[in-house]
Parts: sequence; structure tokens; C-alpha cells
Amino acid sequence: MIPLDGKNYAEWYLDIVEKAGLSDKRYPIKGMNVWTPYGWKIMRSIDGFIRDELDDTGHDEVCFPLLIPETEFKKEKDHIKGFDSEVYWVTKAGDNELDVPLVVRPTSETAMYPMFSLWIRSHQDLPLKIYQIVNTFRYETKQTRPFIRVREIHFFESHTCHDTEEDAQRQIDEDLSILEKVMDRLCLPYFLLKRTDWDKFPGAHYTVGIDTVMPNYRTLQLGSVHHYRTNFSVPYDITYEDESGEHKHVHQTTYGMSERLLGAVISVHGDDKGLVMPPDIAPYQVVIIPIISKKNAEEVKLEAEKIALILRESGVRTHLDNRDDRPGSKFYDWEIKGVPLRLELGARDIENEVITFARRDNGEKGTISSDSLVSGVRLILAEIKKDMRSKAEAFQASSVLPIGSLDDVPERVVTFPWCGSVECGGESRGEGHQDPGHTVSCGEA
Amino acid sequence: MIPLDGKNYAEWYLDIVEKAGLSDKRYPIKGMNVWTPYGWKIMRSIDGFIRDELDDTGHDEVCFPLLIPETEFKKEKDHIKGFDSEVYWVTKAGDNELDVPLVVRPTSETAMYPMFSLWIRSHQDLPLKIYQIVNTFRYETKQTRPFIRVREIHFFESHTCHDTEEDAQRQIDEDLSILEKVMDRLCLPYFLLKRTDWDKFPGAHYTVGIDTVMPNYRTLQLGSVHHYRTNFSVPYDITYEDESGEHKHVHQTTYGMSERLLGAVISVHGDDKGLVMPPDIAPYQVVIIPIISKKNAEEVKLEAEKIALILRESGVRTHLDNRDDRPGSKFYDWEIKGVPLRLELGARDIENEVITFARRDNGEKGTISSDSLVSGVRLILAEIKKDMRSKAEAFQASSVLPIGSLDDVPERVVTFPWCGSVECGGESRGEGHQDPGHTVSCGEA
Repeated sequence: MIPLDGKNYAEWYLDIVEKAGLSDKRYPIKGMNVWTPYGWKIMRSIDGFIRDELDDTGHDEVCFPLLIPETEFKKEKDHIKGFDSEVYWVTKAGDNELDVPLVVRPTSETAMYPMFSLWIRSHQDLPLKIYQIVNTFRYETKQTRPFIRVREIHFFESHTCHDTEEDAQRQIDEDLSILEKVMDRLCLPYFLLKRTDWDKFPGAHYTVGIDTVMPNYRTLQLGSVHHYRTNFSVPYDITYEDESGEHKHVHQTTYGMSERLLGAVISVHGDDKGLVMPPDIAPYQVVIIPIISKKNAEEVKLEAEKIALILRESGVRTHLDNRDDRPGSKFYDWEIKGVPLRLELGARDIENEVITFARRDNGEKGTISSDSLVSGVRLILAEIKKDMRSKAEAFQASSVLPIGSLDDVPERVVTFPWCGSVECGGESRGEGHQDPGHTVSCGEA
Repeated sequence: MIPLDGKNYAEWYLDIVEKAGLSDKRYPIKGMNVWTPYGWKIMRSIDGFIRDELDDTGHDEVCFPLLIPETEFKKEKDHIKGFDSEVYWVTKAGDNELDVPLVVRPTSETAMYPMFSLWIRSHQDLPLKIYQIVNTFRYETKQTRPFIRVREIHFFESHTCHDTEEDAQRQIDEDLSILEKVMDRLCLPYFLLKRTDWDKFPGAHYTVGIDTVMPNYRTLQLGSVHHYRTNFSVPYDITYEDESGEHKHVHQTTYGMSERLLGAVISVHGDDKGLVMPPDIAPYQVVIIPIISKKNAEEVKLEAEKIALILRESGVRTHLDNRDDRPGSKFYDWEIKGVPLRLELGARDIENEVITFARRDNGEKGTISSDSLVSGVRLILAEIKKDMRSKAEAFQASSVLPIGSLDDVPERVVTFPWCGSVECGGESRGEGHQDPGHTVSCGEA
């Protein structure tokens, strides 16, 4: 493992992604990587929490087609202008040139809204709240990086339609409360920054970006919430009949976050030894390493199996590492993969009716009494979760400096008052985001 | 609802798909339909069972990129010949013509195998067993039909590599045992038919098709299992070092089934009133309809809520229909959606300490004693599952006729001995499958 010393974050990141088995970037298309089993498990676990929250708030899951006819794609002119340079085009099928070229979804507004126009008739059909978890495609010309800047992007997108602007605004409040629950699972702090007019999503009335601070003191945009007002419902003709029989355009919002959530989990929590997984999304929350000598091999193995069974039955995701290898080498492997809690079991532990533990996040060691195994493990996992978020919050707080003018900008994220003009805004030093954005976000004072 | 009378299966099918809210085919690309909430819930539930079975047999879930460079796609010449006329091509990104056109995955052999060649080094890396659940794309020129013949196809594909042909054969046996478990959940009978040489998957050594009989007495191919031998590992250079240090090509298999599983569930079990959902995959297994009069409204509503809570807490997927509508109209709606068990609760039921039930599959009615609510519901759901499979098996058995020669071919699925020659085989009357195939499958005697 390359140690993380603050300056070498980029190399450290690539090293950890490879060593932990999260993704393979040797696929023969730049920026389109293979989700290998460990990485995909984590992503699916994140997806699961998002799905739970969206289901609980009355969103219905759907799946729209990947391909969008050019004719539909071009209906909202700001939107197409924003995406024109970064979409993939299907122009041929079999041996035929297609009459209407098809866009590979860069986001699904233009796929969904022609259907919304058919689905919504009356105020009783509102609010309409749907979401999908799919991959999306952007022809990224900058340097790519796994999970952070890729050309095939795993993400969720929710789309809602409302009778009034106020109801749409309530939806955005709900989105932000969902966000807090998801970020709590990931132990990630974040900023909410309303984007400038030139930085908002193409077609949006306004955009709130969700950003977090990376070890190199730059922000990473994880997702965003958009209020569209009627900017799309007018060109796509999405109307409802209100109680008095009048036809009105719906107000719309969208909300999306991508696999950058995983990129942030890796970067914010990782250390010199590898990943540090938040307990809620760790594929294994506990790994058990039997410490075996020739004399006691059978006894220790049996006891380790018993413990694994008890933990699994109580719902703790547990792996028993029975490989024929040195304990030190196993410690090393599971530290790279970031398993939150390691349990070690040797003859002396069995004699003393305890099990030895080591926390991945802070290295703390101790013992749990055998007769309170499950509650002891649960307690430590809860503490790990709390401490991981606190540590990340402390880093984020330390990384933000209030400054007086652009001359004082240091090498970290800053917040400063801004008059709101394009000219002044253009002076800020920006790093592009995959979702159009800038690193130096003006926390609109 | 259009009644199903044996001759109008095609119209009945389209009607039920729309009325039950499974899919919307008004999306502006032919054969690319929108998965609406109810249909997607069912499909995801089927996916869940498949995932469980593959995980339990040591397959790892992955996710490979959607796009495949033409150069990789063309490495196996039978394979490309088989798919050339039905793939979508991405030729442009932003304003740039791509140097190497990209194929939108029609299946993932050519995406995965270049990576397998990097992943596999020694016999210790074998067997390699992976799968993914993704959408795949075929430029279908025939008439499309939801779930059965579409251009964006939801499916799972598992891919395995083995040191020997025998181990690959064992994998196929495992695949077939997974199949039986999945089909048990769906209450679907099936045929396993080894495909003829001209009907096998492009590049396969042999193919076993998984077929079921539809109400119009035609078979529908739901998926297939392929033994590739080394047909792909040679062109893709997938080798391992055996224990003696010799480099050998791996033996490969694949296994896949598509959203046609849902098409079969609809068709095999459905009736004049709509869907009949197998209890294991029904989004709601039980719907509770309160039978309310003015006098007893409060009491009945409270009791219905109590029952819903008890069932949900015991893991029965339960919906309480509290809409302000006539019971008859609610019955009608839930019959279309195929909810396996309807519970009706009125003042008299409460007085008698029972709850009235109606089975969706056979219309049978009766009462369950309130004090054995959960066990009573579980028992009936188990009976429904058993009876649905038996009924479907009886239909399949009745639909197969052994015949002596092609002159005797009636309007249904037949099995007959066949000499194995291409000339004789060509005489059989075939209907194309989406996976290349024929309706009249010669059960190679």
C-alpha cells in the first residue's frame, strides 16, 4: 500500500481501488471500468439504503429505456446545449443507418418527460414521485478516475411532478432529509451549496450541489437536487387539470447521486493501510481470524465457527477466515478491505472466555466477554460508526477557512461572501466537476 | 379485460400487460418499453431469487461496461456472425466520430473475456464463477411484444471458467438445479431441449434451451445454458497454469434467462380476470378489503389495520385497501393485478372471530379463524403455489403430443425422433425465438 501523506492522494487512491478489489480499470475503453465483486457489493449496499429511503417516502421505482430519440432529446434547448458535447450517439443498428439517431442516456429527463405527459391528467395524479437506479453515460474528455470521473456512471435519479412550486419546494426539503439519512450510513459530512446561474444543471431553475471535502482539500460533488419549476413541463407539455378544470403545467424536481458516494467513502475514511468501511455498508462487518497452534487447532476452529454462526444468526455480516496462512498476512488483507472489526480467537481467549478485538478505524484493541458477544460487537460497531463520522466532520471543519478576498485564497476549500455577479464569480479558481461545477464554491452569503 | 379463449392470446396478453400496469409500450422507440412500478417490482423480485441462488452456489456478482469495442467484439468469428445483424452501434461521442465503433452489449462474452484473460493465471483461480443482472440490446426486426420480444432486454448472465471439460459439465448440472429452484418460485414447468447445431448459440459447443408452453400451444424460450468448451478461451487467450506448470485453455459455460420469465408468468397463469401471481413473487401476497357499512366503519377499519399489521410483522407482504370505493370495484382491481389471496373483513366476520378469504387462482372462498390468522394465511399461500404449478404442469403435459412423422404435426408442441441431419431438421415448422431458436424443437431422441 502507498501511504497517504496528503500530497500523494491521487496515487494512493488508484492503489487502494486496485488492491481492495473495488474496480478494474483495464477494460479496453477509457473511463469504463469493471465493477469487481467487492466494489459492486458495496455499491449495491449503498443503492439498498437509497432505495429504502425513497420507497419509504412514497417514490415508485421504475426503469426507463437507455436510449433516447434525438427528437425528444432536443426539446429543451438549455438542456441539450449543456449535454451536446458529452453524449454518445447510436447511429447504426445491424447494417442500417438509423433515421433518428439515439442518445445513450446522460440523464433521463428527456426519456421520462414524454411519458409523464401521457401519465399525468389531473391533480389527482400529483404528486408523481418516481426513481430509477441505472447507469448513465458521459463522454468525459478529462482524465478519468474510478468512481470519481468515469464515462459509465452508476447513479440514482428521482423525478417528481407537483401542482405548485411550493409543493415542489417541499419535495426538495424531503430530498435533503433523505440525504442526511444516507450520509449518516456512509459517515460522510457534506456541504449544501446552491449553484451559481452559470453552474446550475442545464434547464434547472436552481440547483443545490452536495459536496464533500477530499484529502487533497478539494471538494467533490456527490450529487445534486434541482428545482425545475416549469422549465421542462412546458416543452414536454406535462399538464394537469386542477379542481376548477383549468389546465396547468406541473412543477418538477429531480434528485440524484452517483457512484462518487463510493469514491468519497474510500477517500474520506481510507488510511495508510487501505479502506476503512463504514459498518452499515461493509460487505463484512466482522472478520474472525483463528489464532491456531498445532496443539489446539481443532478446538479453536470449532469455537471460531460457533462464534461466526452466532454473529451471522443475529444479523451481523461475518466472515470466518479459515485460510491456511499466517494471522499477520490475514490481518493485512482485511485491513486493505477495510473490515470495521477484527476478532481474533486463540486458546488463551477461549480459556479466559473472551474474544480479542481490533477496530479498523482507530486501531484500538481489547476483549469482549464471550457471554456478551453479540451485544459487545453491536456496541463497538455503533461506536465505530459514530467516531468515523466525527473524525470526518472534524476534517471537513478544519478544511474550510473563511477569507476576506480572493487574494487570500489558500490551498483548501474556502467560503467567502460574493456579490453574485458573473464577473466576480469567474475569478474564483475552479476545478471542473463531472456534474458541471467548480471546486471553489462560493457559499452564497 | 379481454377474456382468454385460446385463440385471442396475443390481444389478451397486451391488454393484461397494460391494465395490470406492468409496462408502458408508448415509449417513442419500438420494442423499448418503460418498466412501470408494478412490473418492475415483480421483475426485481424474480432477480432477487436468481441472485440468492447464484450467491449460494459461489457466484460473485459483477457489473461490466455496456459498450464493447468493435475490435474485441469481432474476435470470435461465429459469435460475431450470429449477432452482426442485430447489434446497435455507437459511432459518435459529442461531435467526434469514434475511431473504434462501440457495440451496445447484446450479451457480454466479448466484454468479459478480455478481462478473464487478465484475471486467470493459475489453476488456483479456477473455477471462476461470476454473474451480472443488466439490460442487453438486440435490434429486433420482427413484431415486438412486452417482455417476450423487446429490443432492450433485462436479463441475468452467469459466466464460468473451469480447468476441465468435466468441471464445466458439473457447472451445467448446477445451473439446472438452480433453474429448478427458480422455476418452482414461479410455478412454471419447462422443457430442457438440447439445440440442434444450426440452432445453438453462436460460438457454443452445445446449447440447452429452457422452454415453456404458452396458451397458444407454442413454446417460449426463457433462457439457455451453453457449454463453450474452449471456443472462446482460444481467441481470447484465457489460459491457466496447471499443477505441472503447463499452460492450458479454460473450459467455459454460460447461463442466462431474461424478462421472458415474467412474460411466461403472465401467460401461463393469467386468466379472464387478469394476472395470477405466484405467491413467492407477488408484490402483495394478501390484500385486505374492509367491508364497511355506516354503523361499523370505525370498528372494521381498526380491525383491518390490526390484521394488516400482524401479517406484515410476520413477513407476509400485505396491502390494506382503504380507498373510498365499493368493495366490488376493489375486488376487480386486485384481481387484475393477480394478488394471490384476498381477505374480506366485515362486522359479521369480527363477530364470528373469522376472516373471509378468496383465492385468486381458483376462486375458492372460505374463512380463517382469527386466532390462527398467520398460520392460516401461510397455509393457503403454500397451497396456491402448489396448485398453480400442478395446473401449469397439467397444461404442459396435455400440450405435448408424440407423433410419428412431420405429416402428423398438429397445432401444438410435438416431440418426435429425429435422425440428426440438417436436411430433415429443416423440414420442421419453426417460429423464431429472440434467442435464435425454433418452436418445433426436436427432442433429440
